[in-house]
Amino acid sequence: MKFISRSVFVICLFMIVSAMLNQKAKRIVFFGDSITEAGARPGGFIGMIGDALTKKGLASQYELIGAGIGGNKVYDLYLRMDDDVLAKKPDVVVIWIGVNDVWHKASFGTGTDADKFEKFYAAIIKKLQAQNIQVILCTPATIGEKTDFTNQQDGDLNKYAQIIRNIAAQYHCGLVDFRKAFLEYNLKNNPDNKDRGILTVDGVHLNEKGNQLAADKMLEVLLK
Amino acid sequence: MKFISRSVFVICLFMIVSAMLNQKAKRIVFFGDSITEAGARPGGFIGMIGDALTKKGLASQYELIGAGIGGNKVYDLYLRMDDDVLAKKPDVVVIWIGVNDVWHKASFGTGTDADKFEKFYAAIIKKLQAQNIQVILCTPATIGEKTDFTNQQDGDLNKYAQIIRNIAAQYHCGLVDFRKAFLEYNLKNNPDNKDRGILTVDGVHLNEKGNQLAADKMLEVLLK
Amino acid sequence: MKFISRSVFVICLFMIVSAMLNQKAKRIVFFGDSITEAGARPGGFIGMIGDALTKKGLASQYELIGAGIGGNKVYDLYLRMDDDVLAKKPDVVVIWIGVNDVWHKASFGTGTDADKFEKFYAAIIKKLQAQNIQVILCTPATIGEKTDFTNQQDGDLNKYAQIIRNIAAQYHCGLVDFRKAFLEYNLKNNPDNKDRGILTVDGVHLNEKGNQLAADKMLEVLLK
Amino acid sequence: MKFISRSVFVICLFMIVSAMLNQKAKRIVFFGDSITEAGARPGGFIGMIGDALTKKGLASQYELIGAGIGGNKVYDLYLRMDDDVLAKKPDVVVIWIGVNDVWHKASFGTGTDADKFEKFYAAIIKKLQAQNIQVILCTPATIGEKTDFTNQQDGDLNKYAQIIRNIAAQYHCGLVDFRKAFLEYNLKNNPDNKDRGILTVDGVHLNEKGNQLAADKMLEVLLK
Repeated sequence: MKFISRSVFVICLFMIVSAMLNQKAKRIVFFGDSITEAGARPGGFIGMIGDALTKKGLASQYELIGAGIGGNKVYDLYLRMDDDVLAKKPDVVVIWIGVNDVWHKASFGTGTDADKFEKFYAAIIKKLQAQNIQVILCTPATIGEKTDFTNQQDGDLNKYAQIIRNIAAQYHCGLVDFRKAFLEYNLKNNPDNKDRGILTVDGVHLNEKGNQLAADKMLEVLLK
Repeated sequence: MKFISRSVFVICLFMIVSAMLNQKAKRIVFFGDSITEAGARPGGFIGMIGDALTKKGLASQYELIGAGIGGNKVYDLYLRMDDDVLAKKPDVVVIWIGVNDVWHKASFGTGTDADKFEKFYAAIIKKLQAQNIQVILCTPATIGEKTDFTNQQDGDLNKYAQIIRNIAAQYHCGLVDFRKAFLEYNLKNNPDNKDRGILTVDGVHLNEKGNQLAADKMLEVLLK
Repeated sequence: MKFISRSVFVICLFMIVSAMLNQKAKRIVFFGDSITEAGARPGGFIGMIGDALTKKGLASQYELIGAGIGGNKVYDLYLRMDDDVLAKKPDVVVIWIGVNDVWHKASFGTGTDADKFEKFYAAIIKKLQAQNIQVILCTPATIGEKTDFTNQQDGDLNKYAQIIRNIAAQYHCGLVDFRKAFLEYNLKNNPDNKDRGILTVDGVHLNEKGNQLAADKMLEVLLK
Repeated sequence: MKFISRSVFVICLFMIVSAMLNQKAKRIVFFGDSITEAGARPGGFIGMIGDALTKKGLASQYELIGAGIGGNKVYDLYLRMDDDVLAKKPDVVVIWIGVNDVWHKASFGTGTDADKFEKFYAAIIKKLQAQNIQVILCTPATIGEKTDFTNQQDGDLNKYAQIIRNIAAQYHCGLVDFRKAFLEYNLKNNPDNKDRGILTVDGVHLNEKGNQLAADKMLEVLLK
C-alpha cells in the first residue's frame, strides 16, 4: 500500500510539474485603431495591464501583443486580420473599434453604415471563434467628453456602442463597456463639462487616467 | 348731475369703441423651415393656434402668418428676412430653425458650423429687435424619436438647442423649448423606442399629435 | 483501313454532337448596384443584351442573370458575393460598382475610401478568379451629365474609374469603360450642358438610350 | 501772348502739383481665407505685389492690406466685412474665396450650398459697390494639383469657379481666374501628375512659385 501510494504521489507530482512547465502563456492580441496603437506605446494601457499582471504574479501566464493602427474602421480590421491577428495564433483577441466608423462620416465622408458595421464585426468574430479564439469586445469610449450630451457624435456613438453590446450577447463574447464606463467617470469627474482633458487629451485619445481606466476595465474582463 | 354723468358715459363709451376699432390685431409671423411650412397647411400647428385663439374669443386680436420654407437653415432665414418677414410688419416673430443646420452635415455636406449658426441667429434677432418686434425662439425638436439617445444627430441637436437657449437668454427672447418638450413626451409615450410615429411622421416632420404639441407649447409662450 | 477510318469518323462525330449537346450555356452574372438592378427589369440593359444575342442566333449559348441591389458599394458586393454570385456558379461575372462609393460621401457620410475601394475590389476579383470565373469590370458612368466638368463628383468619379482601370490591367480582366463612353457620348449629344436626360433620367440611372449604350458596350467585351 | 502762355503754364503746374499732393494712395484690401492670410506674411503674394509696384516706381500710389482668415467661407467674409473691410475705407477689394466652401463639405460637413454661395457673394459685392469700392474677384485655384482631373473636388471647384465668373460678369467686376491659370501652369509643369508641390505645398496653400503666380496675375488686373 505504502509503496503504491508513494508512486502515485510521485506520478501526480510529475504530471503537475510537467503541466506547469508545458503551460504556454495565454497570448492576447489587442486589435483596434489609434487608441490601441497608442496603448502599446510606453505609458499605454497594454503596458499597464502587463504591470498589473506582474504585481499579481501572473506575468508569465500572459503574452500581450498590440495590433492597433491609426484611422482603422471595422472593415480595416477585417481586411488585415489574417496577417495581423490570425498569423500570431492568439488565444484571446480584444477588439476595440468604432470611433472612426462614426467620426469619419463628418471628417472624410467615409464612415461606416450601421448595418455594414455590424456585418463586418460579426464576420471578424466568426472567423476568430472558428479557430477557438476567445473574443472580447469593447464599446467605443468618447468623441468629446462633455457630459451634457452635446458632443456632436454622442447619438451615433451610442448607437454603435449598442450594436456592439448586441453582438457581444449574440456571439457570447466578453464585453468591456467603455462607452458606459467613460460616461460614468466623466459625470463624476468633469463638473465643468469640458470636452477633453479628463480621460483623453483631445476628446478621443487617452491620457494617463484614460489609459489606467482602460487597463483596469480590460483586466476585470480578462481575469474573469 | 344726470346730464354730466350721461355725457361722461357717452364719452367713455366712445373711447372704448374707438379703442376697439383702432386696436389692430397682433401680427405674428412664423419663420422657419419645412416644419413651419407644413404648420401653415390644413391640420398644421398654425391653424391649431388659430382655433385655440378662437375658442378663447381672442381670434380678432391675432393675425397669424406662416413663413416657412423647406430645407431652410439659419442663413436662409437671414437672407430672406427682409422680403418674408420685415415687409409684413409683424409685431411678433416666432423663429423655429436648426434641424437642417444639423441634418445637412450628413445629407449634403452643407450643414452650418455651430459658431456661424449663433452669429446668423443673433444677426436676425438684432434686426428684428431694432424694429421693436418681439422675438420668440424655438429649439429644434427631433431628428429621430428614439428615447435611448441613439438617434444619429442627438448630440449635435442638443448642442444647437443649447445655443438657442443661450441666445434667448442673452437677447431676452421668449423660448419654446421643443427639444425638451418632445423628449419628455417621448420618454412617456414611446416605450418601444421607435424612431418615428409618436410626434412625427418621419422622425422630423410633425404628425397630428406633434402639431398639437407644437400649437400648445407656442400658445403658452404667445399668451404669456 | 476503311473500317478504321469510318469508325474514327463515327467516334469523332459522336464526340462533337455529344459536346454540342453537353455544351452548357455560358452563365453571366451582372453584379452591381441600382443601375444593374434596373438593368434586369423590362427595358433594362440586360434584356437588351439578351435581345442582341437572340438576333445573332446566340441566345442558347448564354444565360444572363441580374444581381444588382440598390445602394450597394464595393464592400456590399464583397459581403454578398458568396450567396448572390458564387452560389450561381457563373462562368462570367460583370462587375459594375462605384457610383455609391463616391456619392455616399456627400449624401450619407459613408462613402468608401479610395484605398479600401481598391482592396475590396481586388478581394472580389481574387475570389472569382480562384474559381476560374472570367471577370469583366465596368467603370462608373456618371453622377450628373454636364459636360463642362462641373458635376460635383466628377473629380472623385474620375479617380475611382482610374482605380478600376488599373485593377483591370493588374488582374487581366475585361474592361467596359463607361466613364469614358458616357462622357464621349455626352460631349457629342449634350450641347446644352444638361445634368440629366441624355443617357440618364436623374444623372445616374439609365434611360433607354443609356441602357442601349450599356448593352452595346458590354456586348462588345462579352463577345470579344 | 507771352504773358498768357506763362500764366497758363503756371496754372497748369499748380494743378499738377496740387493733384500730386492731393492724390492719396489707392488702398487695396485683400479679403479671403488662409491663402490670403498667408499671402500677407513674408514671402507671400501681397508682399510680392508690393515689390513689383516698387520696381515700377508705383509704390507710393498703392497701399496693400491683407484681410485673410484661415478657414473662411463666403459667409464668414459677409459676417466680418464691416469690421475688416469697410472700416478700412478701401478703394479696391480683391476677394479670393471658395476653397473652404467646397472643401468643408467633405472635411466638416459644413460646406456652402452653391446657391447660397452665390447669394452671399452677391451680397458682399453689392455692399462694396454701394460705397463705390472697386471689386476684383478671384476663382479658387486648386484642392490638389493633379492634372488628370482626379482631384476629389475638381468638379465642385469648377462649379464654384464658374459661379464666380458669372458673378464677375453680372456685377462688372475685375476677375483673376486662378482656377484656369493654375490648371494651365500645371498642365505644362506637372508631368508626373503630382497632387502638390508644383504651385502649392499641400494641394491648396501656395509655395513660392504659387505666390509669384498669384502676384503676377493679380497685378495684371490691378494695373489694367
